[in-house]
Amino acid sequence: MQLTGSHILSISQFDRDTIERVFTVADSMTPYAARRRVTRVLEGAILGNMFFEPSTRTRVSFGCAFNLLGGEVRETTGFESSAIAKGESLYDTARVLSGYSDVICMRHPQEGSVAEFAEASRVPVINGGDGANEHPSQALLDLYTIRSELAGRGRGVDGMRIAMIGDLKYGRTVHSLAKLLLLYQDIQLILVSPKELAMPEEIVEQLRLRGHDVKVTDELTESIQKVDIVYSTRIQEERFQSKDEADLYRGRFRLNQAIYTQYCEPNTVIMHPLPRDSRADANELDNDLNQNPNLAIFRQTDNGVLVRMALFALVLDVADQVDKYARDVRWYNASRNG
Amino acid sequence: MQLTGSHILSISQFDRDTIERVFTVADSMTPYAARRRVTRVLEGAILGNMFFEPSTRTRVSFGCAFNLLGGEVRETTGFESSAIAKGESLYDTARVLSGYSDVICMRHPQEGSVAEFAEASRVPVINGGDGANEHPSQALLDLYTIRSELAGRGRGVDGMRIAMIGDLKYGRTVHSLAKLLLLYQDIQLILVSPKELAMPEEIVEQLRLRGHDVKVTDELTESIQKVDIVYSTRIQEERFQSKDEADLYRGRFRLNQAIYTQYCEPNTVIMHPLPRDSRADANELDNDLNQNPNLAIFRQTDNGVLVRMALFALVLDVADQVDKYARDVRWYNASRNG
Amino acid sequence: MQLTGSHILSISQFDRDTIERVFTVADSMTPYAARRRVTRVLEGAILGNMFFEPSTRTRVSFGCAFNLLGGEVRETTGFESSAIAKGESLYDTARVLSGYSDVICMRHPQEGSVAEFAEASRVPVINGGDGANEHPSQALLDLYTIRSELAGRGRGVDGMRIAMIGDLKYGRTVHSLAKLLLLYQDIQLILVSPKELAMPEEIVEQLRLRGHDVKVTDELTESIQKVDIVYSTRIQEERFQSKDEADLYRGRFRLNQAIYTQYCEPNTVIMHPLPRDSRADANELDNDLNQNPNLAIFRQTDNGVLVRMALFALVLDVADQVDKYARDVRWYNASRNG
Repeated sequence: MQLTGSHILSISQFDRDTIERVFTVADSMTPYAARRRVTRVLEGAILGNMFFEPSTRTRVSFGCAFNLLGGEVRETTGFESSAIAKGESLYDTARVLSGYSDVICMRHPQEGSVAEFAEASRVPVINGGDGANEHPSQALLDLYTIRSELAGRGRGVDGMRIAMIGDLKYGRTVHSLAKLLLLYQDIQLILVSPKELAMPEEIVEQLRLRGHDVKVTDELTESIQKVDIVYSTRIQEERFQSKDEADLYRGRFRLNQAIYTQYCEPNTVIMHPLPRDSRADANELDNDLNQNPNLAIFRQTDNGVLVRMALFALVLDVADQVDKYARDVRWYNASRNG
Repeated sequence: MQLTGSHILSISQFDRDTIERVFTVADSMTPYAARRRVTRVLEGAILGNMFFEPSTRTRVSFGCAFNLLGGEVRETTGFESSAIAKGESLYDTARVLSGYSDVICMRHPQEGSVAEFAEASRVPVINGGDGANEHPSQALLDLYTIRSELAGRGRGVDGMRIAMIGDLKYGRTVHSLAKLLLLYQDIQLILVSPKELAMPEEIVEQLRLRGHDVKVTDELTESIQKVDIVYSTRIQEERFQSKDEADLYRGRFRLNQAIYTQYCEPNTVIMHPLPRDSRADANELDNDLNQNPNLAIFRQTDNGVLVRMALFALVLDVADQVDKYARDVRWYNASRNG
Repeated sequence: MQLTGSHILSISQFDRDTIERVFTVADSMTPYAARRRVTRVLEGAILGNMFFEPSTRTRVSFGCAFNLLGGEVRETTGFESSAIAKGESLYDTARVLSGYSDVICMRHPQEGSVAEFAEASRVPVINGGDGANEHPSQALLDLYTIRSELAGRGRGVDGMRIAMIGDLKYGRTVHSLAKLLLLYQDIQLILVSPKELAMPEEIVEQLRLRGHDVKVTDELTESIQKVDIVYSTRIQEERFQSKDEADLYRGRFRLNQAIYTQYCEPNTVIMHPLPRDSRADANELDNDLNQNPNLAIFRQTDNGVLVRMALFALVLDVADQVDKYARDVRWYNASRNG
């Protein structure tokens, strides 16, 4: 796949070579994201950060990634849809806004809207999330995190074992991650969810056809015993058909330090797409895991900056020039590992 | 008119020489807006982009124009009027905000508010729209577009023929454009609107006193036959006194490709201030015109960036230094004509 | 106190030496804030300007201060609390957002929230206001303004006379300023308020224990006769227990030019934290004071930029490098004293 000048709309665009290229470039962004170096390669470029639905962290993450390459950011934060409300087509919106910037990141509540927008845009568009459909940079940062965490343990994505936990029916991130894993080999997946919120059969079949070993269950503790990665996601109570059903599963997918210590192998990586609900009755990750060095949830969001920097650098064809316009950081650099 | 350090509040400030100066500078901004060149002339300058009423595209257009000159943008997007709600005067708001930036662009729902603000401001203020009153950069970009489009056809603004169509009573843009045309000679204007939404008599008289040839009508197809420019605007149903009146005119001011082909001269330019309502029952421009090379509506918004860059460069007195701080673009430059 | 890498959460962190250091650095920022010089010392740095409660002027002031040092600003303006609404902890929010920037300025409606956030942050956090609790940069800019104004009159903060007027019970700014004055000597304070809205007894006692001369009263005209500084604040009607009580004091704390001329010494400085309610029935500063050269309220907001530049420069340890990366301004520089 050619990334220069391309729209990034869906993970289905990516083959394994392209993903490796993105990840190699993301690796090379580390000194800049960690504020040891500053690059000005995109000085003068403008990102149109068009969020027609609010999402503080995704918006800020894209904006910071662009700033870290030296570019400027103009943005909308989701509360000014006057033109669209007046009946303007996505075609018109795209023709207009693409005259203002060098690349656009767009989030929109409606499925397919970003692809429609991209078709009319005169500059590359990156999908920042279109409803329940796609959020490709999230899927890439998840896979990048798995790769990094396993590399630190002397392993690779091929042959790994992963438990996906929570709402696997509606969770956009687990669908995307599962599809990306079709590009890799010999993976063991344990899909842990309430029966009502199971992974769509179509995705399970694709995974099995690829030769992956897939187990479907609603038992947490058994599932996390022999995996490299625990990928937890939110279960929203309103997804259940009845309160009785919700009560049946209350807290059964909540992972805490005691369960981790009792059941998991010593270095099992814990991931979550965030935000997590930290309240005690939620089906998520307990705060007592915060001191666990295998909790990778904030390394995930940090990696999001690296992956988004890589996407911008590749789409705008400056990946090989980043270091050329670089210098050391002049200011106090807080330890980012603290 | 002296532009350095001046407020840009109304098109009535402009004489013909000043307009030509603005347009010449706008022309010189083309390589920067088209991303062939980058300039840093305003590096370190700050635009206060103060939108006390939301307008994504105008706000982003001003912001991008300033970024393209190398400056920074701080802004408000219309939803935080706490201080004004607490009874703060525009005088105080202006004294405070003008301490933060080098130039201010301000939009405000209330007529006259931007002029009142400017009087107390310590830095130049550009009116980004004050209610039904003025939006001078829109009028200038419209005239600039007419000039550019006609230049490509070997003609000038003097002696041109234009049909203005739609709501000519309440439409701020057609009022401003008509007033700017008072600075030019021998223009033929055909003013096409429902009788209830006709151009104010005062403006018609001024145009005639200037020696222009003005025709007032409510027939679309006759009016567009021998003109260089068709300038279409939105008619909002709620402007009519009754539903019957609205029904009478439904679709009668809608221009589509079939009507264009049947009635217009081959190279007639189609303009619109945008946003247009693309829904089929609106009185606007049909989507089937999108492939018509004479549809200039997105060249209008592109030209808005050029004109706003020119205004900033002139107000801040850097028009002659733009090229001095320039270099080539380093990144992939999407074709902006696609 | 060590400022490099520190959080700025409360004025109680500051000793007198640290304040003097901040003010000396703020003085050195004058050529940059006045746009005679441009510095790029923080080029490549990112401020996370996280306003979880809207406040246009404080947000823009922090953003401009960072831009004036050459840095970039990513921000949120208070209307997108989706993650927090979904039950996310401040710990998680802080861990995520601190991965995006070099320093964070945060405003939040809840007391103590910024300190909680700072504890989890991986970069320095500056409190931009946490409910009724603290807003340290406002207190510092008030004190800096007093120092500057009195310096112009050949005096210092030690030994000065100040009248604080208005709602001294709920006013965050007067509490903070009073506490800062505990670091200075021999100050005369006249605390003027309705009895129901008097300065908390605890603060009065601290001031007296420090050796300051404190007088408590509800009479305006007597109180302003022999002071160097009149610091006026807003009284909100809803603070009174009854309408009768409010009527009793209506307009009694309003200062206008006639009262100033009749009662004040010639060079008495007038201050206010802004916004002021300019409507005639408010208990604040009258508009007819706007031409009075001793009205320092807009010098206060201007000084806010200097003080915030100083805080950023000190926290990020670049105060000594600001001039090294400086050059002259290239553009038209409006007189900022007009």
